[in-house]
Amino acid sequence: MTDFKSILEDINQQISNTEDKGNVADYIPELRNVNKNAFGIYLNVLNNKNFGIGDYQTKFSAQSITKALTLALAISKNPEDVWKRVDVEPSGNPFNFLSLLEVENGIPRNPFINSGAIVIADILVSELEHPKEDFLAFVRQLSNDNSIDYDIKVANSEKETGFKNYAIANLLKSFGNLKNDVDTVLDFYFMQCSLAMTCEQLTNAFYLFANHGKCLQNKLHITPSQTKRINAIMLTCGFYDEAGEFAFEVGLPGKSGVGGGIVAVLPNQFVISVWSPGLNKKGNSKLGMEALEIFTSKTELSIF
Amino acid sequence: MTDFKSILEDINQQISNTEDKGNVADYIPELRNVNKNAFGIYLNVLNNKNFGIGDYQTKFSAQSITKALTLALAISKNPEDVWKRVDVEPSGNPFNFLSLLEVENGIPRNPFINSGAIVIADILVSELEHPKEDFLAFVRQLSNDNSIDYDIKVANSEKETGFKNYAIANLLKSFGNLKNDVDTVLDFYFMQCSLAMTCEQLTNAFYLFANHGKCLQNKLHITPSQTKRINAIMLTCGFYDEAGEFAFEVGLPGKSGVGGGIVAVLPNQFVISVWSPGLNKKGNSKLGMEALEIFTSKTELSIF
Amino acid sequence: MTDFKSILEDINQQISNTEDKGNVADYIPELRNVNKNAFGIYLNVLNNKNFGIGDYQTKFSAQSITKALTLALAISKNPEDVWKRVDVEPSGNPFNFLSLLEVENGIPRNPFINSGAIVIADILVSELEHPKEDFLAFVRQLSNDNSIDYDIKVANSEKETGFKNYAIANLLKSFGNLKNDVDTVLDFYFMQCSLAMTCEQLTNAFYLFANHGKCLQNKLHITPSQTKRINAIMLTCGFYDEAGEFAFEVGLPGKSGVGGGIVAVLPNQFVISVWSPGLNKKGNSKLGMEALEIFTSKTELSIF
Amino acid sequence: MTDFKSILEDINQQISNTEDKGNVADYIPELRNVNKNAFGIYLNVLNNKNFGIGDYQTKFSAQSITKALTLALAISKNPEDVWKRVDVEPSGNPFNFLSLLEVENGIPRNPFINSGAIVIADILVSELEHPKEDFLAFVRQLSNDNSIDYDIKVANSEKETGFKNYAIANLLKSFGNLKNDVDTVLDFYFMQCSLAMTCEQLTNAFYLFANHGKCLQNKLHITPSQTKRINAIMLTCGFYDEAGEFAFEVGLPGKSGVGGGIVAVLPNQFVISVWSPGLNKKGNSKLGMEALEIFTSKTELSIF
Repeated sequence: MTDFKSILEDINQQISNTEDKGNVADYIPELRNVNKNAFGIYLNVLNNKNFGIGDYQTKFSAQSITKALTLALAISKNPEDVWKRVDVEPSGNPFNFLSLLEVENGIPRNPFINSGAIVIADILVSELEHPKEDFLAFVRQLSNDNSIDYDIKVANSEKETGFKNYAIANLLKSFGNLKNDVDTVLDFYFMQCSLAMTCEQLTNAFYLFANHGKCLQNKLHITPSQTKRINAIMLTCGFYDEAGEFAFEVGLPGKSGVGGGIVAVLPNQFVISVWSPGLNKKGNSKLGMEALEIFTSKTELSIF
Repeated sequence: MTDFKSILEDINQQISNTEDKGNVADYIPELRNVNKNAFGIYLNVLNNKNFGIGDYQTKFSAQSITKALTLALAISKNPEDVWKRVDVEPSGNPFNFLSLLEVENGIPRNPFINSGAIVIADILVSELEHPKEDFLAFVRQLSNDNSIDYDIKVANSEKETGFKNYAIANLLKSFGNLKNDVDTVLDFYFMQCSLAMTCEQLTNAFYLFANHGKCLQNKLHITPSQTKRINAIMLTCGFYDEAGEFAFEVGLPGKSGVGGGIVAVLPNQFVISVWSPGLNKKGNSKLGMEALEIFTSKTELSIF
Repeated sequence: MTDFKSILEDINQQISNTEDKGNVADYIPELRNVNKNAFGIYLNVLNNKNFGIGDYQTKFSAQSITKALTLALAISKNPEDVWKRVDVEPSGNPFNFLSLLEVENGIPRNPFINSGAIVIADILVSELEHPKEDFLAFVRQLSNDNSIDYDIKVANSEKETGFKNYAIANLLKSFGNLKNDVDTVLDFYFMQCSLAMTCEQLTNAFYLFANHGKCLQNKLHITPSQTKRINAIMLTCGFYDEAGEFAFEVGLPGKSGVGGGIVAVLPNQFVISVWSPGLNKKGNSKLGMEALEIFTSKTELSIF
Repeated sequence: MTDFKSILEDINQQISNTEDKGNVADYIPELRNVNKNAFGIYLNVLNNKNFGIGDYQTKFSAQSITKALTLALAISKNPEDVWKRVDVEPSGNPFNFLSLLEVENGIPRNPFINSGAIVIADILVSELEHPKEDFLAFVRQLSNDNSIDYDIKVANSEKETGFKNYAIANLLKSFGNLKNDVDTVLDFYFMQCSLAMTCEQLTNAFYLFANHGKCLQNKLHITPSQTKRINAIMLTCGFYDEAGEFAFEVGLPGKSGVGGGIVAVLPNQFVISVWSPGLNKKGNSKLGMEALEIFTSKTELSIF
């Protein structure tokens, strides 16, 4: 049987010896103050047990990782709207993401690029009575942890500097693919991204993606078929324009965030979260990617 | 000697017989209510006299035509800033105008595409004490006509629906090429575009471009060299992605607006304004283009 | 236990009742003459048995399906060169595939778009003593079937009309990413695409991708890690700009061709080939896609 | 009266003192061997006289300058075909010239980018009995100089390395916008570009553009209206993606080539050719641009 504990310890050892830890995101002022040497992993092996290493109980900014969670919630509320207003193809082109929106008439390539996530936010603003409170309650329920909360400072920091997201939301609006006010939608969107969570909490929150749509407490939130599809999108689109590389090197559906977190899933088998704040050039956690690569190599566990 | 009067009458005759008058702009709600059959021309031959035909004293929305006037004012205030923050190349690519901004790091291709004009508006907001009042005073002085005014309804109409311009301004801001607030700059920009003017007033306002920078009242606003350069930009960029076509068919520097107006200039010789509200597919006045084509063919007057 | 036989029969039934069978590819003259009603499936369940339905023993043009086989052979010969000269990211953008090559300095996005496959062909021309003969021998060995052969008529047909591929090869050459002559490489490339194979032969040829790199005769051609990576690329890039859709709807690594064939793989479990010549708008077999969707729904077997 | 002679001498003086002479084109091997310090000007003032300075009688490779001459010849033979198969808009986008062709279905933006010039070459191959001989005869007649000839070495050098042009021609062919064989058209195209001419010969050859379509020997080759239109295209598209800059700084219709030559025209007034082999980053003669800028500043002669 795979000795997960010693594999995680090996990874921790190897990572702590790596000098190049990437660069901490600085485009959101509040994110700059994080400790670059922080590193944590939390693994949940289904029907088995959990393993934590390093700073797995330190909170960090979940950022884009939350896009998988808003997608799940939006699909549980209004799947037709989701698939009518957002496509499921990899975006391919980082260098002109706005132009894609233009060329493709305001239909974002997928729900994990910013434009797609903003449309998903718009759907939640329409579907939920109290969007911010309801989404927070959803995440707390998934993780079975009421200590999870937004980080208002981070949200405000992004609100004051997130001009590109305002550009995107206005462009969506010009194409009729944003139903609510730009400001209302972005208020929710920046709040969602600001969620502060630990590796442990993230692993628990993503448990439903490895478990056919049922969360830790065995409640069904999305159908098995919907779960399968979100996993497919995480694999093809979860890592910005490095999705192919991640599939190639790691071979797991997953979602990364500029806070340095990555959550990855092997359906029926495990959920794993890694956190290291330094990013590579494509905006994914540098050591997080490397840790997962070692993990799937050593365990020989991947979807391929 | 050229008989301008009878040439204009011929044009009027020919145009009134044309059935396909194009389509009135409908993206700004307030613009929809214009009379599609309106048609006017006003010609000022330097050192000679003026000729008006048809509805040359009816006011219409000047819209993008004002971009030549804000450019002139910005150059008179701060030419270094203008050329550092805006390029002078034709945009070429209508289909992905936002992506060009992305690829070229927030430097608009030229001052006559919306992104460029918004940067110019930003410069004026920085340079003028009372931007709206001061720009209006400038245009009134150029035209020697204090009855010229903004059309607040049109400005508000565009403010409520101009999401693409909000997208552009936010994108510029994200690249650091907008110094003032997005809302402040667009307030001024929408106001500027709303200027209601007649063919006669527009011809008078553009007199300086044919007269080495000196307006009707012989006051020097921009240097001869600056005038020459604005004329060059009007020729290469004055007609959206139909600039080449206009140079090819008409052969004059000029500027069009979606209100259906076109002003064109032959340096040292004349200024001419045409107005017909129906647009062709590229957004320029359909009959206005045709009228100017006939005019330069019959008079054999063009820069080429 | 899953009753594969009756599932395949159900699919056959359902498909034969579908009226809209898509459109047969007509850009290669020789491909037009195929029978649009042809339909076949061949399934190999590892360590179990094989199932054939319909026209699974009729030969058709494998076309782009062969790109997975040339990739495997190139990787077995010179993996460093492969990953240095071709990327592994989805292309995303069908509308300007050549421009991507330009923007990205002649490095194709992945080995399954034409530019990438032409670079792979170039590598094989360099690595193999007798490229055409040696590649054919490789496929025959994988399938354990010496009756497999090129279809010279199809190859010649494409050679005379494949101007876009000549454009691509010359563009690659201009960037220094084609080592051999354009004509030599395209001769091989068109030949490779012309391979005529049955569903049964294709399933057998792809057996190694489900079996850690070992072919039907238990010979190791590529390492388990290389196999995993090719599967990852098949998932993210195997279906032109419909890769995301296929991952989303079907959830298997696979490769399609304009001849109407699709081969898909579930590592450790099965290989399946489908053939129906009518294509959907994105160039993939319309009924083939539908058949595989039904298959993974009914069997609940997918990587997600 | 303007003292052209002393103005040219001033320019020569100023230019010879400039240290940064740009970089000689090296993408065509044969062009590398030119003397970087060469500099010549030849001016023809209509109805007045000619002025030569420096190396105005040294032959150099005319390259893209010939595109204005093939365009004139094609228009004189088959104007309908020219304007149906090539547009007249500035290309704007240097970074993805091939993608524009794709997006715009094989219709080149204008006759002066390579794709447009290759379509013009295709038209001449169709219209002329002996394309190479007939075009040479045309240029010799325009210049009244039978010593003008192709430089076979340069043509062959480009043929062996001009993969991008092969890519373009094949792409045009794939869109049906090339009627003759790729090789036949490019043979002619490379030959045309290889024309070796002096400043004096080029000025004489372009005389018709300043003279309503009549050449030095008073023969009418193109109509006044066609001449006007070619001048318009030279202004908006004659300098690659620096056309706006040239219009802005110099203000004359003109055409440049990577051999370091530039010819510019002021209708009814003069034709001027400049040669300095070092290029700026956009591929136009660095000192040639500067010389013309000084010329139009000092003479105050421009179209604006």
